[in-house]
Amino acid sequence: MIPETLKWIGGVEGYLELIDQRLLPGEFKKLACRDTEQLWDAIKTLAVRGAPAIGVAAGYGVVLCLQQVDGDMARGLRAIAKGCDYLGSSRPTAVNLFWALDRVKRKAEDFAAANAKASLEQLQAAVLAEAEAICREDKAMCQAIGTHGERFIKEGNGVLTHCNAGALATAGQGTALSAMYEAKKNGKSFSVYADETRPLLQGSRLTAWELQQAGIEVTVICDSMVAVLMRQGKINLVITGADRIAANGDAANKIGTYGVSLLAKAHGIPFYVAAPSSTFDLDIASGDEIPIEQRRADEICSWGTRQTVPTDAGVYNPAFDVTPAENITAIITERGVIERPDTENVRRHLGK
Amino acid sequence: MIPETLKWIGGVEGYLELIDQRLLPGEFKKLACRDTEQLWDAIKTLAVRGAPAIGVAAGYGVVLCLQQVDGDMARGLRAIAKGCDYLGSSRPTAVNLFWALDRVKRKAEDFAAANAKASLEQLQAAVLAEAEAICREDKAMCQAIGTHGERFIKEGNGVLTHCNAGALATAGQGTALSAMYEAKKNGKSFSVYADETRPLLQGSRLTAWELQQAGIEVTVICDSMVAVLMRQGKINLVITGADRIAANGDAANKIGTYGVSLLAKAHGIPFYVAAPSSTFDLDIASGDEIPIEQRRADEICSWGTRQTVPTDAGVYNPAFDVTPAENITAIITERGVIERPDTENVRRHLGK
Repeated sequence: MIPETLKWIGGVEGYLELIDQRLLPGEFKKLACRDTEQLWDAIKTLAVRGAPAIGVAAGYGVVLCLQQVDGDMARGLRAIAKGCDYLGSSRPTAVNLFWALDRVKRKAEDFAAANAKASLEQLQAAVLAEAEAICREDKAMCQAIGTHGERFIKEGNGVLTHCNAGALATAGQGTALSAMYEAKKNGKSFSVYADETRPLLQGSRLTAWELQQAGIEVTVICDSMVAVLMRQGKINLVITGADRIAANGDAANKIGTYGVSLLAKAHGIPFYVAAPSSTFDLDIASGDEIPIEQRRADEICSWGTRQTVPTDAGVYNPAFDVTPAENITAIITERGVIERPDTENVRRHLGK
Repeated sequence: MIPETLKWIGGVEGYLELIDQRLLPGEFKKLACRDTEQLWDAIKTLAVRGAPAIGVAAGYGVVLCLQQVDGDMARGLRAIAKGCDYLGSSRPTAVNLFWALDRVKRKAEDFAAANAKASLEQLQAAVLAEAEAICREDKAMCQAIGTHGERFIKEGNGVLTHCNAGALATAGQGTALSAMYEAKKNGKSFSVYADETRPLLQGSRLTAWELQQAGIEVTVICDSMVAVLMRQGKINLVITGADRIAANGDAANKIGTYGVSLLAKAHGIPFYVAAPSSTFDLDIASGDEIPIEQRRADEICSWGTRQTVPTDAGVYNPAFDVTPAENITAIITERGVIERPDTENVRRHLGK
């Protein structure tokens, strides 16, 4: 079964239940977030991760903001403003976090403005409805990407993916992995290779786990093993997610994706990117303008408790790299497929 | 200073001193092997590793075989035969281990046949001399590779290497890294990027450590970061070692090397292989005939004490891959340089 990463339990006085991704794959445990502090912690410590999942969680976080409030709507709005500032500080680089908090906060403000005499309870209901809308839209987006993407997976294929663009990163069934889940629903049999994805191992820890839960055959490899598998003819296509896509189709994604795209090209293997259309940033003309975040050296310097890099040696740890559009066979969004992505084809797809 | 991986201390009753590579880079400690049991353990548990270093260590191991013997040469030869069988069982896939044991054993037998009246002490001296010859030849081989290879490193270059083909893998100053040590001796300033080299991290643990010891600037990266560094123009050349080279120049080396060669090609970056001429196996026409050893899944499945791959998920863990000669700009041996390696150029280089 495809795991359900997050779920709101109950009504306006309910709570958010998350799969605690810090414990996977060794332990499967649900985590209940009953106040904003617990949710802040969950986001901060990566119990929940993946841009869409963080956004949905944050939306429900606004519901939690109101549970401690007594009084009228004005008090409620103040609690929401304060709570959103607080939740936003849990992961300040997560764009979806702010997007979701702002959307639900604005909804609350609009509701209050339009319904001056409404009660706090009615405000709560409006806020929960908006959080649920975000969650519903995310699930529909995942489903649509899968429906559009599954056609690229053929009977007997070997499919390679990098990092985790799966159910665990969304409220629904993921983006890149959604295509696999749909292919399976359609009765195709195929096998997936999951890059372990250094340094944080989202591929071996998360992707392999969720595919296994869904009954899809999966083999974990080190990132350095992609090329030899391709040469052996074991990989027929690559599908990855994307964190940000420029107007010309250049796609930023987890470090290592660009290398995989070059190896695919060298072996004549199609390379697909699956991501919601909201991933496009049309203010950015090409991937050269996407800034590459550097992460902490200590992610690479130890192995459990053991030091693996000499003290004071240099370490380079970029979080992302950019795959140029020319290496991408097609980009799959919830709206359909952009074949041979370039500025013109992207614009046409987005209807702009 | 370039670390001295192994060193025989004293005369025929002496011992072998090794850098304990199991503890690097967190701890630098010498390990004394005073009997064959200690040496067997050191080889088995990778305190000493790298084909040339294992060969040299094994040569000295034959000296250790004689230290417990009382009596005449016949007893000595029996102790050698028994000791060599025992030491050979420490790492049965290491070709150099058997080559060195056989060479010293044969030397002892030849000595005994030619000097029927010699004493055990004289046999010991002959055995030690042969072990020292192996060590001396290894150092000369490393030095010559460095001399031939250093010309490819230019002032200000960024040099990428994969795994550890350095002093820690030989008795001398390594193969691929020897070129770097010679370039430094010649006053060139340059910077090295060391792939961490999953799954066993020889790049981050060993290569980075020994380059740092030798005062060469080194930056550790995950294997998945090679492509983005190349695109940024930070890498001017790649030098790796090789475990086995076919008659046509196809080179087997640590898993990941083939992918690096393709990424170098895609970015127009020269790719060099540095290895002793004994690495060529002319009985093998091309890399397709080189069998790829599969290693244990558990090398990938945990991170310290933490499980990182779901129980029962598939794991693929090949030890090596093969870089086709067409991806190799030149092969550097102790005899010189094979530009554009192919069957004809390899044969000419080896004088066959």
